[in-house]
Amino acid sequence: VSSESSSQVKDTTPDSKHGYETLQVTTTDNITKIMLNRPEKKNAITTQMYREIIQALEEAAKDDSVITVITGDDNKTQIYFENFLPQNFVNHFIDFPKPLIAVVNGPAVGISVTLLGLFDIVYATDRATFHTPFSELGQSPEGCSSYMFPKIMGLSKANEMLLFNKKLTAGEVCAQGLVTEVFPDRAFQKEVWMRLKAYANLPKNSLALSKQLIRGVEKEKLHAVNRQECELLTERMNFFGKKSKL
Amino acid sequence: VSSESSSQVKDTTPDSKHGYETLQVTTTDNITKIMLNRPEKKNAITTQMYREIIQALEEAAKDDSVITVITGDDNKTQIYFENFLPQNFVNHFIDFPKPLIAVVNGPAVGISVTLLGLFDIVYATDRATFHTPFSELGQSPEGCSSYMFPKIMGLSKANEMLLFNKKLTAGEVCAQGLVTEVFPDRAFQKEVWMRLKAYANLPKNSLALSKQLIRGVEKEKLHAVNRQECELLTERMNFFGKKSKL
Amino acid sequence: VSSESSSQVKDTTPDSKHGYETLQVTTTDNITKIMLNRPEKKNAITTQMYREIIQALEEAAKDDSVITVITGDDNKTQIYFENFLPQNFVNHFIDFPKPLIAVVNGPAVGISVTLLGLFDIVYATDRATFHTPFSELGQSPEGCSSYMFPKIMGLSKANEMLLFNKKLTAGEVCAQGLVTEVFPDRAFQKEVWMRLKAYANLPKNSLALSKQLIRGVEKEKLHAVNRQECELLTERMNFFGKKSKL
Repeated sequence: VSSESSSQVKDTTPDSKHGYETLQVTTTDNITKIMLNRPEKKNAITTQMYREIIQALEEAAKDDSVITVITGDDNKTQIYFENFLPQNFVNHFIDFPKPLIAVVNGPAVGISVTLLGLFDIVYATDRATFHTPFSELGQSPEGCSSYMFPKIMGLSKANEMLLFNKKLTAGEVCAQGLVTEVFPDRAFQKEVWMRLKAYANLPKNSLALSKQLIRGVEKEKLHAVNRQECELLTERMNFFGKKSKL
Repeated sequence: VSSESSSQVKDTTPDSKHGYETLQVTTTDNITKIMLNRPEKKNAITTQMYREIIQALEEAAKDDSVITVITGDDNKTQIYFENFLPQNFVNHFIDFPKPLIAVVNGPAVGISVTLLGLFDIVYATDRATFHTPFSELGQSPEGCSSYMFPKIMGLSKANEMLLFNKKLTAGEVCAQGLVTEVFPDRAFQKEVWMRLKAYANLPKNSLALSKQLIRGVEKEKLHAVNRQECELLTERMNFFGKKSKL
Repeated sequence: VSSESSSQVKDTTPDSKHGYETLQVTTTDNITKIMLNRPEKKNAITTQMYREIIQALEEAAKDDSVITVITGDDNKTQIYFENFLPQNFVNHFIDFPKPLIAVVNGPAVGISVTLLGLFDIVYATDRATFHTPFSELGQSPEGCSSYMFPKIMGLSKANEMLLFNKKLTAGEVCAQGLVTEVFPDRAFQKEVWMRLKAYANLPKNSLALSKQLIRGVEKEKLHAVNRQECELLTERMNFFGKKSKL
């Protein structure tokens, strides 16, 4: 994260939220930014991180910010799934009431990829990659990707990722509609945050109501999909009887 | 509109429909053409124009034509929405029983863009642009775009337009599937009408039944979406308590 | 089909299935391959071939293979529809429980195109073309294409094919998501089978369960669409009172 947010990440910034160990949560210029903050583990999403993201989303839903952004720590965005049934976690993405924006600044794996269909805008650096190796780990898709990926890409493209473990580049997922736009890495933070600040000056209520209108039509379906995905994950985990690695 | 339709636009043409002030409606070679005709206002869709388009669609649904085409007056296709609740208007697009084709020959704004998801084919000149600046006007999407745009483009692309006011080129919306094909402006009318005339020679009943089959599967959903969009628009208009500019 | 499968097509191969006249069905390396085998008629799908494909799919669903592949005889994949109501046939594609992969090695016409939306992966040679000339034959779409094509491509692209008989290249359908990937013809068999063999080494159960999860969400809808398509086809056939040519 470059200069424009450097003041946000210190605990001394007035609007930085306290009480998070695995995240840095700040609100500036109408933007609530949730930054994953576990560099030593390449941002693996642990149970604690899940809980903290849920809490940060609940707070962002109620605060005065116009848009909410989730991003990895700079250079270390790899995120994976550690033996956690994500139903409640994913529910918070389905129900989030304001525009929710993902800023993908590095390789993304597992649930950090599958969740992208629930974001309203996804910006990625050109060095990001997208990988969901469920099949080779004896797992199955989550994050509503079993429904959203085919809807976004068509089945024949989605299945390369969801069934056959293909790792895609940022350009490839952008061509298929999962990512909104890809930026050269050297200009990434600057370009993205320039846009986000412009978005954050739009009428808050107008954005929230339009987002809810757009999402509302399939909210019920998404909750049903999430439920089914987690039922299958439970079966699979019990079948393996061991800690899942994805 | 170039030579091949120049004879249609005179009131003396036998098959030109009378009684329209804001449109020129003609039927030739199995094609009913509805051309917007308010150059002095850049084809703003006023209440009168809404009523006349509804009437022209009702007549086209029953006449002997094979396909129906809606287009702007040459060079002046900009169309916007003037304080009008479009539910009944949009219903006529959802229910139209024959192939409905949009010929976009200039910049399109507002409801002339959002309606495009309800057309069966959309041809555009390469100087057309597509703009739905709802958020910055405190408005929300209509024309079933809150459902059709994410379905066509995926959410991450649709939201740039519907939430964040991004103006797209013809090439961009074509790559995302909203527009069928883009033509160089100098060849636009010639190329498009050559195709439309070929389409109009196909079996009328076969086209109509196939179109109804393809659309039928989501007609009920589209009416529900239209209802919800208009409910939100009503709330928004009352909230602002003034004439909407989009 | 090149060298790697040359041993499979002899009746003396132990795992080649007997009792098929219009197909060659083999299981090798966890892959069940169903190859159309009527070169003298360019692989027209006759009533007998329909019945045999249904039988082959039923057997493949139960055998030990991990993935199932359907392909044309080399150089002669043109497939068309001969006066057959395909409801039961299409049901077997909707319900197939394992990853189902199409290898399109030549021009495809009619139901061999419309069915592609029900495959999980579609690989095509760059000399394949895709053509569904329903309207000009007084027919209507089948194979769930009236639902799947708009879902995959958006309506404005799907209608060029389904309503207006446009023949597309492999590159075009790939850009629109109906085909997963296109290969140069000289490398086609080698590249495709290298991938398929890798896929066939993934955990069988994991693939099958993920596929069922992904498809399950719209299985009911697909059966309803298939029913409606076949009702319309019946009407159309009765109307014409003659043998359909597509």
